[in-house]
Amino acid sequence: MPESTPTIALAADRDAAALRAAARPATRAGRAGRQLARSHKVSPVRPGLPGGQYRPLTDRDLERIHATALDVLAELGMAEATDEILDIARAKGCTLGADGRLRFPRALIEDVIAGAAKSYVLHGRNPDRSIEVGGDRVHFCTSGEAVRVLDFQTGQYRPSTLVDLYDLQRLADSLEHVHNVGQTVVATDLDDAFVHDINVAYASAAATTKPFGISSATAAHVPQIIALFDTILGGEGKFQKRPFCVIGGCPIVSPLRFGRHTSEVMVATTRAGLVADMCVATQAGATSPAALAGTLVQTVAETLACLAIVNFIRPGHPMHLGLWPFVSDLRTGAFTGGGGEEALLQAASAQIARFYGLPSSISAGMTDAKRPDGQAGFEKGVTVALAATAGGNLISEVAGMVGSLMGASFETMVIDNEMLGIIQRALKGIEVTDESLSFDVIKEVISGPGHYLGHPQTLALMSSEYLYPKIADRSSLSAWEEEGSIGILEKARKEAKRVLAMHYPESIEPKADAAIRERFPIRLAAADMRAGNGRW
Amino acid sequence: MPESTPTIALAADRDAAALRAAARPATRAGRAGRQLARSHKVSPVRPGLPGGQYRPLTDRDLERIHATALDVLAELGMAEATDEILDIARAKGCTLGADGRLRFPRALIEDVIAGAAKSYVLHGRNPDRSIEVGGDRVHFCTSGEAVRVLDFQTGQYRPSTLVDLYDLQRLADSLEHVHNVGQTVVATDLDDAFVHDINVAYASAAATTKPFGISSATAAHVPQIIALFDTILGGEGKFQKRPFCVIGGCPIVSPLRFGRHTSEVMVATTRAGLVADMCVATQAGATSPAALAGTLVQTVAETLACLAIVNFIRPGHPMHLGLWPFVSDLRTGAFTGGGGEEALLQAASAQIARFYGLPSSISAGMTDAKRPDGQAGFEKGVTVALAATAGGNLISEVAGMVGSLMGASFETMVIDNEMLGIIQRALKGIEVTDESLSFDVIKEVISGPGHYLGHPQTLALMSSEYLYPKIADRSSLSAWEEEGSIGILEKARKEAKRVLAMHYPESIEPKADAAIRERFPIRLAAADMRAGNGRW
Repeated sequence: MPESTPTIALAADRDAAALRAAARPATRAGRAGRQLARSHKVSPVRPGLPGGQYRPLTDRDLERIHATALDVLAELGMAEATDEILDIARAKGCTLGADGRLRFPRALIEDVIAGAAKSYVLHGRNPDRSIEVGGDRVHFCTSGEAVRVLDFQTGQYRPSTLVDLYDLQRLADSLEHVHNVGQTVVATDLDDAFVHDINVAYASAAATTKPFGISSATAAHVPQIIALFDTILGGEGKFQKRPFCVIGGCPIVSPLRFGRHTSEVMVATTRAGLVADMCVATQAGATSPAALAGTLVQTVAETLACLAIVNFIRPGHPMHLGLWPFVSDLRTGAFTGGGGEEALLQAASAQIARFYGLPSSISAGMTDAKRPDGQAGFEKGVTVALAATAGGNLISEVAGMVGSLMGASFETMVIDNEMLGIIQRALKGIEVTDESLSFDVIKEVISGPGHYLGHPQTLALMSSEYLYPKIADRSSLSAWEEEGSIGILEKARKEAKRVLAMHYPESIEPKADAAIRERFPIRLAAADMRAGNGRW
Repeated sequence: MPESTPTIALAADRDAAALRAAARPATRAGRAGRQLARSHKVSPVRPGLPGGQYRPLTDRDLERIHATALDVLAELGMAEATDEILDIARAKGCTLGADGRLRFPRALIEDVIAGAAKSYVLHGRNPDRSIEVGGDRVHFCTSGEAVRVLDFQTGQYRPSTLVDLYDLQRLADSLEHVHNVGQTVVATDLDDAFVHDINVAYASAAATTKPFGISSATAAHVPQIIALFDTILGGEGKFQKRPFCVIGGCPIVSPLRFGRHTSEVMVATTRAGLVADMCVATQAGATSPAALAGTLVQTVAETLACLAIVNFIRPGHPMHLGLWPFVSDLRTGAFTGGGGEEALLQAASAQIARFYGLPSSISAGMTDAKRPDGQAGFEKGVTVALAATAGGNLISEVAGMVGSLMGASFETMVIDNEMLGIIQRALKGIEVTDESLSFDVIKEVISGPGHYLGHPQTLALMSSEYLYPKIADRSSLSAWEEEGSIGILEKARKEAKRVLAMHYPESIEPKADAAIRERFPIRLAAADMRAGNGRW
């Protein structure tokens, strides 16, 4: 290699060596110094950092999508409204056509939007973990309801179970960049719908003190789930005062139909004073137009129909726009979540909710890869970075999901958490102040040491402005080789195993637990909820 | 699993099956139909799609960074200007202080910015591959000058060679989303600086008909490299009429010093009428302030100093702002390229160049991972998505680079190309027109089949609006398992091997080749430049 060839890599390596040497005395030598620095550090990221800097649609685009969505609701309307929804909607001025479709006058929808909740709180059992959904605040969630799990021991897929759900929720509970714990998998080992739903509720409440969400197959389960949570809290009515769980689903069957059971759940939770959950999962080219703008129009229309029903029941009720447009691979018909069209649809959805000034749930974070490999990395990286900078409030399909939402993976969840850290650091933005512009610092350095290594500004900011990865590799090539050439998958496996072997939140008190087990068909064995169960 | 549990994954799976079934007749059954659809498809992406929708800095931030950079140039100035640069700059009104620093009056820099080239052309040997750099047009490039390569056979790192460079450039030549071929590796097997540079020039010209770039260790090599290219083109002066190669480097040694040899190269290429290449590679916390805003100020100041010198020599000369701020991991001093701070600095750099209305080169696309694993995926995904949507013109460190720019990898280049496809699809945006808003299509579908599968809009757009991956997996879980559970790394290996075994561009005619080999110390064996050489 010619000595004088100007290579960035070499310059960087030289800089690194110099910096290492110079940094040591300043931060106290070696490991102890670094540990000290870390223990004193104030994390540069926090839940709810501001998005909205990325705007894939113009203002004119937004207006036109909105106007066409209103045309769809006013002229085409929604099919298969339940009798209850018909009664509610007609009382407010909607009309039922001879074609059985419920039509929403434009002005009525405009009024609904104007009166809808601008933000709401998702309560954690631990109040420090509550989050406020809305504005430009970005939060990351698990979700997905996959039916398979990438088995930790074999590395192969198998049907997901209740214990998997409990373990995945425990892992999500431990990961600092996951702010809301959605239902990652279905417990396919539970046949009965009620047994399934009540156990998902129980396992989630046992696994996390963050706000969490579950699905309910029918409205009839909602009071039972509320009773379970009341038992945890030790008194009837306690849960509804400060609900730590969202019970919901997808109230729409696209195109433009209400789902019977799912819309009943939405109505029931609204009447119960719980957050009205909603995601509208269109699929471009299959259940919504192949034109991306058309898919947004239909998704917005369907979402606004749900918003209207909920606000007819309780004006200003806590809810978000759950704009979840998906994409079909039109060569094969396969559902796909990792492409550029999907990234655009998700970011545009976030922007549309901001246009309305309403909270949003966005489906970004999927991958079509089956394992947490390079494909999973870039598909999640691109889609989440764009949805977050577009200002999605609840970015919902990130942590742990693989295989186009058909699978969940422990290792993937740990890797995704790492990615969410760097995206949050990007969201935090660049502080531009007299001090940070650094004229005086630059002046001191060029007339002094000629580098910034030991400068007080550097030492101050290293612990407050820089986010350091927990498992992502930053070692030198030679150090990496000496340490066995370990990639992130292996590190994530180790971290997941470490957490799952020891992190049993025990967030249900023994007395409440006994009462729950007496009243409900709980299938999660107490032995599986303690360390030393042999699973990890 | 309860049948009535509303899971997105199940709904998606059902949709996919229905779509598959319905799509078949419409696109002619099976493989043949899909191939037909593909062969007729117009790619939805092209080089130079528009960025700029992501704006991490406010207008006020931009003004303040600009004003402070001008303060730095006017009050602190640049050290170690060569005599030639001093003569040029003082003639235009710069002053040399008693401290040896060259100061640039604010108004002079403002004039330079106003008169600088707003765009320029990078010519390909194949004119269809030429690109126009500037405006909101985003292009992707290789670059990096690593000193190691991830060996394709062993999977271990080893020093990079001239043959590696030739092979990496051939691979870049074949990848549709790489628009400009930079120098990925140093030929560490060549000791002599001149032998190195002339062989890098030769190997690159032999490997690609896209526009490409190389470094030159000293200005003295520039006329020799021009002579080599003239020989390829068959006549003296021909290269400079339509130069297909940029010769350059990093003319700055931060903080605020000119590099002697590298600034001489910049001056020499400018005088020769070639694009004045420039990247200013600061390192936050080491060679520039730890405050990100301060690093931008210093990087902008250093970049504007280069812009000034070049424009003093030739007003309006083709060049870009090469804003390449890097980050130090302040715990260890290691150079790092994959974090959120880096993503922000790169996107902000793109935005700053757009603020000036000048072309940009941006360093995004790095990873600190040592192999193309999940970490490499998300670090590249996040950094490139943000730099591209911020409107960087030449995004320069993407394809193939790993290990914090210390290594290059064939498989990584193929995977990165796939990622660049989806990012370009996102850049293309959502077309919002009467037609794409799809009111009439929605109306037809709800009163007709109830889905969009065979609709003429779907069939028309499947071949023009959707980008299909080449190697990224989109199969169902069961198909993926049946086909051997293959991840993207294995597919990328296969694709790299396929291309490298057959793609020998032979872009230097035998007569010219003989003349070059007679005049210059060419070390790339002719046998290595033909299929069947046993390397692949």
